[in-house]
Amino acid sequence: MLHIRPATAADVPTILRFIRELALYEREPAAVVATEAGLLRDGFTEPVRFRCLIAELAAGAEEIAAPAGFALFFTSYSTWRGHHGIRLEDLYVTPELRGKGIGKALLARVAQIAVAEGCPRLEWDVLDWNQPAIDVYQRLGANILTEWRIMRLSGDALSTLAAHST
Amino acid sequence: MLHIRPATAADVPTILRFIRELALYEREPAAVVATEAGLLRDGFTEPVRFRCLIAELAAGAEEIAAPAGFALFFTSYSTWRGHHGIRLEDLYVTPELRGKGIGKALLARVAQIAVAEGCPRLEWDVLDWNQPAIDVYQRLGANILTEWRIMRLSGDALSTLAAHST
Repeated sequence: MLHIRPATAADVPTILRFIRELALYEREPAAVVATEAGLLRDGFTEPVRFRCLIAELAAGAEEIAAPAGFALFFTSYSTWRGHHGIRLEDLYVTPELRGKGIGKALLARVAQIAVAEGCPRLEWDVLDWNQPAIDVYQRLGANILTEWRIMRLSGDALSTLAAHST
Repeated sequence: MLHIRPATAADVPTILRFIRELALYEREPAAVVATEAGLLRDGFTEPVRFRCLIAELAAGAEEIAAPAGFALFFTSYSTWRGHHGIRLEDLYVTPELRGKGIGKALLARVAQIAVAEGCPRLEWDVLDWNQPAIDVYQRLGANILTEWRIMRLSGDALSTLAAHST
């Protein structure tokens, strides 16, 4: 039985484990500097910076449900639409439980939340060389915004610009 | 004199005018379905979905300051960094006041907010054919994330996925 529910503060260790597993899969394990304290602060105390769903799978009604994956998202904003949207940051299913539709079920639950809130868009980022993932998303009806690129300011460049006097 | 300040509810008509001017510049004027009521709801009542800065320019101390541009942004979240970031949705300077550093001043003020909140990243989207803009951003120290693409679910595809039963 698959069960999807909103994460609680008690799920923070599981969420951090999943974040690290996902970074390992993406071959960037050292990139994760997130901590349990930070996730607790940002997901479960005001101001809440993200929302998270946990998928749990039990082999049978008598079995204890084991964490199978998670979806973590935040609200974006479109000035053209004049409405907030949902931006999916992470979608992850533990490797031994893939191929059971858990990822699609998590994404569908996020889509339900988007529709319930009147959001015109559910968006997420994908690596341009990850064609298998792009194929899956396009089969679900997602469009790839080929013309758009992300610009990022961080580190010293961010500090330098912040110190610019007007 | 250039003055940058947080927008208030009284600025909503100006913000919507700037949003429409920006869409016209991007040759998509019909794409703007935002309304004053929606911007008032999303920017100035809880839950607040975006923040906005207004730039005003006065020719002299005796002059009335005229709206010169705006920056509109929301908070993102990085699970790798374990911290929220700032995502810039719109940065706009009215055409007759360009070349005076107003855009950089607005971006710098957003960077100040990011630094003050401990955000590791300030990000925004750019069209891949808008090389003049990319050049400006790169001179400020921004990196272009060439490998990443945005996937978008909207309209019927979003509704259909939302109706998927788990």
